[in-house]
Amino acid sequence: MKLSSKNLDTRLDQVYDAIVVGGGMGGLSAAIYLARYGLNCLVIEKGKGRSVWMQDLRNFVGFDPDTPGRDILNHGMKQAIAWGADYLRGYVENVVDEGEHLAVQVKVGKKDSIYPVFRTKYLVAASGVIDRLPQLDDMQNVYDYAGYTLHVCMICDGYDMWDQKAVLIAGSESQINAAFVLNWFTPYISVLTHGLFAVGDDMKAKLADHGYPLYEAPIAKFLGQDHQLRGVKLTDGTVVEATTGLVSMGSTYHNHYLKGVQGLEWSGENLVTNTMAQTTHDRIFALGDLKQGLNQVSIAVADGTLAATQIWRNTRRASPPRKWEENLAQALVS
Amino acid sequence: MKLSSKNLDTRLDQVYDAIVVGGGMGGLSAAIYLARYGLNCLVIEKGKGRSVWMQDLRNFVGFDPDTPGRDILNHGMKQAIAWGADYLRGYVENVVDEGEHLAVQVKVGKKDSIYPVFRTKYLVAASGVIDRLPQLDDMQNVYDYAGYTLHVCMICDGYDMWDQKAVLIAGSESQINAAFVLNWFTPYISVLTHGLFAVGDDMKAKLADHGYPLYEAPIAKFLGQDHQLRGVKLTDGTVVEATTGLVSMGSTYHNHYLKGVQGLEWSGENLVTNTMAQTTHDRIFALGDLKQGLNQVSIAVADGTLAATQIWRNTRRASPPRKWEENLAQALVS
Repeated sequence: MKLSSKNLDTRLDQVYDAIVVGGGMGGLSAAIYLARYGLNCLVIEKGKGRSVWMQDLRNFVGFDPDTPGRDILNHGMKQAIAWGADYLRGYVENVVDEGEHLAVQVKVGKKDSIYPVFRTKYLVAASGVIDRLPQLDDMQNVYDYAGYTLHVCMICDGYDMWDQKAVLIAGSESQINAAFVLNWFTPYISVLTHGLFAVGDDMKAKLADHGYPLYEAPIAKFLGQDHQLRGVKLTDGTVVEATTGLVSMGSTYHNHYLKGVQGLEWSGENLVTNTMAQTTHDRIFALGDLKQGLNQVSIAVADGTLAATQIWRNTRRASPPRKWEENLAQALVS
Repeated sequence: MKLSSKNLDTRLDQVYDAIVVGGGMGGLSAAIYLARYGLNCLVIEKGKGRSVWMQDLRNFVGFDPDTPGRDILNHGMKQAIAWGADYLRGYVENVVDEGEHLAVQVKVGKKDSIYPVFRTKYLVAASGVIDRLPQLDDMQNVYDYAGYTLHVCMICDGYDMWDQKAVLIAGSESQINAAFVLNWFTPYISVLTHGLFAVGDDMKAKLADHGYPLYEAPIAKFLGQDHQLRGVKLTDGTVVEATTGLVSMGSTYHNHYLKGVQGLEWSGENLVTNTMAQTTHDRIFALGDLKQGLNQVSIAVADGTLAATQIWRNTRRASPPRKWEENLAQALVS
């Protein structure tokens, strides 16, 4: 059921089979499977995840290409609750390994916050990443285009940039290398550093060799209307013509709450997992963008299936088998 | 575009980037990604796959739980074609490794069949499995319940059998062991051998210890109405009461066309694949039920993403980079 500060105290004395941190596509997939395995689970969702930014989902079999991420998430939340999962809006601040259980410390409510602690046998880390965007004084100007014609994921949206004039907004010199993959989709690439870093001579030569102009002044404003980019105005007055763009500034990982847990193996900011999405900690699983591999909705959804199934297997194997007692009683009598 | 015997000769002189054998959820996912990577691909679908049997899809985030498999597949086919994939109804008879390419031999049409051969750089094997069902003289009587209240996948449908009286129809003694997993969902299990094999004393003792009755007479008829099972009548006249059932008779793999290809590593009937769904053959990928792992729609969909992405990476890395020629020409002039 849906939990809130009003009713969550009913869940503080129990131990969940699994707590899922993050109600994105991976977390909801895990919750639907967990609930249908008859395990009691809680999804804790902070809001504003990566899928909420998706204005459409064009590469997922069976969904209408113009389905917005928020609609799918809302639908998935209702599914999970209908099958029996608990769902709470809150922010996971910390996870403490208490040996037999994991204690999950949550902040609920922005005003008059409360700080409940839930206990669980298994934890599914599905809190994902959020893409960094160029910071302007007027962030609404960025949001007007981000997720529409200003993309953050080439695999998702490269097709929709085909042979268009595109800006590539990089956050560091190495992130400029995305240009040499983006050119599969379009060769009309202008590279913008937003004034964040200096570009070395080798990279400048490589860009020149490809015919990709480099602009090192900060961005002043995105130009266009109705979410359709037309160009980018820089602080030095230059206007770079572009009908689409790719932001290549890296991601912020929502994994702080796991940093104090012993026994987790990391590869940079990604958790190392096995074929069942299990981390190197017996009772912690990691899905989608938090683990190594492609940051794609389909991968996160499959990871949710895998994690939930392994948690079910572990739980089942640790439980006594259910016998048909009535037949046993009869056998005893006869 | 949709191909048929009328227009497929337009595709016989070209080499596809990828041919996808099987238009189930995995194959369509691969095709949608391949098409959006700008690769030319062909899906060859024989019809009547496992997903078509799904009367609903209850464990997939974002879909209505009562969405039938055939609706999702039909939608996915239209998506793939809309993004630029070719799609053909046909039966892949054989694949021949010609060194630079793979030749895919297809039978098209049940009457007046033609036998075109398509060529491709990469092959995606997504032809899946089909679950074996008990064979009765009146198969319509089986189809009336299969996929409704007579299930073939415990992970998918165990929840819907919760604490109900269930028949477990096994195809061999080892397949009876499914009872000791199914008892997570319900302990009221009657085991049916359909007269196909003898049951050893150890297994009989184990079943008795759990209180699960064993019936060794062949099935005469499934009883019930409107797809709702009420019981099973055996040829010896016994009626076994049950409102649900699980068929545990194994699967037939649609992988015959790969059996002559050198360099593929098999694990039983499953293809061994790496983390990108690539087999041990450089240019052959395998998805979902054909490879090792869970037979779940979400896994096949993710595998399609992985295979298509690796094919794109390989193709991109083998192609010259696209430069912005206009800027290069200007640089030369100035």
